[in-house]
Amino acid sequence: MSRPKVLVSGHIAWANKEIYDLLEPFGDIVWLDSPTRDHFKNVFLPKHPGIVAIYRHNSSSDHIGVYDKELVDLLPDTVKFIAHNGAGYDQIDVAACKARGIQVSNTPGAVDTATATTALHLLISCFRQFSAAEQNARAHKWKAGLAPAHDPDGKVLGIVGLGGIGAVFAQRCRDSFGMKVIYHNPRPKASAPAWAEYRTTLEQLLRESDVVSLHCPLREETRGLIGAKEFGQMKPGAILVNTARGAVVDEKAMIDALKSGKLYAAGLDVYPAEPQITEELFGFPNVTLLPHMGTETEESQKSMEVAAMKCLVKGLETGEIGNRVA
Amino acid sequence: MSRPKVLVSGHIAWANKEIYDLLEPFGDIVWLDSPTRDHFKNVFLPKHPGIVAIYRHNSSSDHIGVYDKELVDLLPDTVKFIAHNGAGYDQIDVAACKARGIQVSNTPGAVDTATATTALHLLISCFRQFSAAEQNARAHKWKAGLAPAHDPDGKVLGIVGLGGIGAVFAQRCRDSFGMKVIYHNPRPKASAPAWAEYRTTLEQLLRESDVVSLHCPLREETRGLIGAKEFGQMKPGAILVNTARGAVVDEKAMIDALKSGKLYAAGLDVYPAEPQITEELFGFPNVTLLPHMGTETEESQKSMEVAAMKCLVKGLETGEIGNRVA
Repeated sequence: MSRPKVLVSGHIAWANKEIYDLLEPFGDIVWLDSPTRDHFKNVFLPKHPGIVAIYRHNSSSDHIGVYDKELVDLLPDTVKFIAHNGAGYDQIDVAACKARGIQVSNTPGAVDTATATTALHLLISCFRQFSAAEQNARAHKWKAGLAPAHDPDGKVLGIVGLGGIGAVFAQRCRDSFGMKVIYHNPRPKASAPAWAEYRTTLEQLLRESDVVSLHCPLREETRGLIGAKEFGQMKPGAILVNTARGAVVDEKAMIDALKSGKLYAAGLDVYPAEPQITEELFGFPNVTLLPHMGTETEESQKSMEVAAMKCLVKGLETGEIGNRVA
Repeated sequence: MSRPKVLVSGHIAWANKEIYDLLEPFGDIVWLDSPTRDHFKNVFLPKHPGIVAIYRHNSSSDHIGVYDKELVDLLPDTVKFIAHNGAGYDQIDVAACKARGIQVSNTPGAVDTATATTALHLLISCFRQFSAAEQNARAHKWKAGLAPAHDPDGKVLGIVGLGGIGAVFAQRCRDSFGMKVIYHNPRPKASAPAWAEYRTTLEQLLRESDVVSLHCPLREETRGLIGAKEFGQMKPGAILVNTARGAVVDEKAMIDALKSGKLYAAGLDVYPAEPQITEELFGFPNVTLLPHMGTETEESQKSMEVAAMKCLVKGLETGEIGNRVA
């Protein structure tokens, strides 16, 4: 009987040695090389029987698509564990995995500081109009025509979804700028620091915040969470920072709020149809745009890669995957 | 005898009411409207005798030039006080003022947080390659070709010139990223926090720092302070952040260090010949460029404007200008 196999589904940027060190003891490492889902189904899987565990990264979607029900149902019965590299696992149909008895994990925590740094950058850029300023400098226009900028100091930061990332970000904004921090979660967070004031409703949070920063996962109940009604509830001249998922915001409503001046600025790292960025967004000088750089650092990516691998090690050793989310 | 006059030499962005509230009790407010130094000498000054105090902003240089010896020597004997709006007063020949018995003030402190925020933005942008990332996004290239980025967390920050701005910046980097902070000043700073370790020589600081951030004034002894020898002493892959003055760095040596890869990145808010930016700098994806935005916020500018005005009030009331620097 052949050895079990561990499938690497997606890109590993930094921990290429570690995947062998950590997981080869449990099975042969096989690398996804399918250009299409059809190839994965008809060529790759028949050629590699005995896959027990899958290391997954969103980059595999470029070739075989997201882990929707159709893909999950293609997996052989031998698969017991899928370790997703990333905090957000909206590209995996966890119900379909559960139905097949496949455990799923993510990598929270490992990415908190890197994504919080991205949010901090966007917040500063929005208050200070630094994106427009840099574009000006590069167009040999120096400061000509720049809108008046503001200091973040002492303003009110509203966190939507106080989890690991939101908590690190809030702490930094409080320490650096003396910002007042309020947050809205479905329920008060037991681990929230005393200085982070809970708001029972999203509307209460929106009405008080100078900056609204999104840190919630993308789920059915958070899709389009910030829409026309919610922009209407924000303070005139508010700032929106989104490092969570593009689809948490109704993009059309956001563009309307930028056009009307209701939003002073927006800082975006995520978009509804990545890697596409809606053309209209490029036209606003007060919008800072990053290409989903949230966790794009050597240090954070490597620690996420290793964290995901260790989830599989725990699963293979104990039968229960580490950081289990489903 | 006509009333004394207070000259507004340069732009007031926000405190236009305050200049009347604070200074009109001491004399008529007269606004510089000279397009050239010749006009200032031959038309403006003869038309406005009795100037006792001058509110000064660097924007007046666009019309009458810097307050060099020639300009200072044009001022009538009635002038006793020049309040400069800004922390750096390198555009004023303080020796020439002193020789004429004119007291000079600046506005330290008022600008600490805004400039520290600018430095924080540049530091993040350098580690994370966010300038290149945003340019990529705007060119529809998403993440293609971006250099590997890094987290600032846990790295070593070297502050050259620990004054008000450097201290605020260092505190934020320590709080947010757990950075180790070292600094070099001509002498240890009595007010430095215990966690900021003093380095006796600049070379020691450069050899240990992952980021070198400049916060010293421009003086004869700091002109070209960071030159070819100093870049040679830096760690390979170091980052340079300059929110002080462009001429503190030997720009040619910096460009060589960028070309050789000795510098991983540079974050610049200041340039030797503002508003000119040396064309070659635009070609480096790892250089973040801002058009001297250090204190460009409504809140900070207004507080600097008012701070400068209050220096004149103190001078006019007591004979000794507030925040006297010469």
